[in-house]
Amino acid sequence: MTIEFAKTRRADSPLPGEPAPFFLGRDEGEHAHLFDSLVTVKLSAEETRGQFGVFTLEAPRGDTIPAHSHDDVHEIFYVESGLIRVWIRATDGEVLERQLAPGDFGYVPAGLAHTFRVEEHDTRIVGVCTGGFERFFAAAGRPADSPELPAPPYVPPMEQLMAAGEAFHNRFLPHLRLDEPS
Amino acid sequence: MTIEFAKTRRADSPLPGEPAPFFLGRDEGEHAHLFDSLVTVKLSAEETRGQFGVFTLEAPRGDTIPAHSHDDVHEIFYVESGLIRVWIRATDGEVLERQLAPGDFGYVPAGLAHTFRVEEHDTRIVGVCTGGFERFFAAAGRPADSPELPAPPYVPPMEQLMAAGEAFHNRFLPHLRLDEPS
Repeated sequence: MTIEFAKTRRADSPLPGEPAPFFLGRDEGEHAHLFDSLVTVKLSAEETRGQFGVFTLEAPRGDTIPAHSHDDVHEIFYVESGLIRVWIRATDGEVLERQLAPGDFGYVPAGLAHTFRVEEHDTRIVGVCTGGFERFFAAAGRPADSPELPAPPYVPPMEQLMAAGEAFHNRFLPHLRLDEPS
Repeated sequence: MTIEFAKTRRADSPLPGEPAPFFLGRDEGEHAHLFDSLVTVKLSAEETRGQFGVFTLEAPRGDTIPAHSHDDVHEIFYVESGLIRVWIRATDGEVLERQLAPGDFGYVPAGLAHTFRVEEHDTRIVGVCTGGFERFFAAAGRPADSPELPAPPYVPPMEQLMAAGEAFHNRFLPHLRLDEPS
């Protein structure tokens, strides 16, 4: 499955935009700010013929992000440094919860509501997703030129967030609190 | 594209084998030994409907592995700790070479000859590949029960290596030395 929302490569992108070999240093890629996070796209659907995208997410300790789901996007969390807590609602309604430390791994298949919270400063996670979704963060937030955390956080207008959600098939579930006992 | 060689899930696998949510600790997954490396599959084609697989590779400082290519598999190298050097032959014949430190990233699109060398002890890299290829390592090497490096290294019989190469569309290029100036 190739998702057709990925035609958003930036003109100054260090990614080749086609299936060509390339390298990126630790702080290189397409940077974006969304709330208190820095997201850096390392690989997009354009290089993998739609198969998968890769990004890093760096953030300080913060609040649980709004629960959301994406019906056609599989996603992983791989913690490189720091600490996060992930909640995923399985198809039977059960909520899986786990704190993930460096090297730990979490998988969210398409269609399941999920959320996470960064629980330590200087947290960095590696994300892999169905090709195309990696540029959601720049669309929901704003492109950034350098690999610094946003200061102050970038809070997008609600209309922008909704438009990005629609364009990238990301369903926000603001009233669903997976992180609180029901 | 779904590669149809992925029906090799182990009965004792901690992976669900279908698109269900799950977590794995740092040392959990399907372990395999191949030469001096420990490969641990974290996610397979079965969970992602063929889109991508995820694995870690841990190894001591060692020799350059034999050059190889896979016509239908895209692959990334993401260094978590340690140091590797990667060589990729681009379509124009030029060889791209780069040493990758923690956080650095390399991309090998399908069809290009490539190789790498681990240049520091306790190196750990995260690999992402087109779904299905993640189980090549267990087929070429041997499944392992625990997350220790092979001691001594496991050198598979040539017939096994060739059979795994055929089953996973991995073309060995033993006479191509990308790591030496021509």
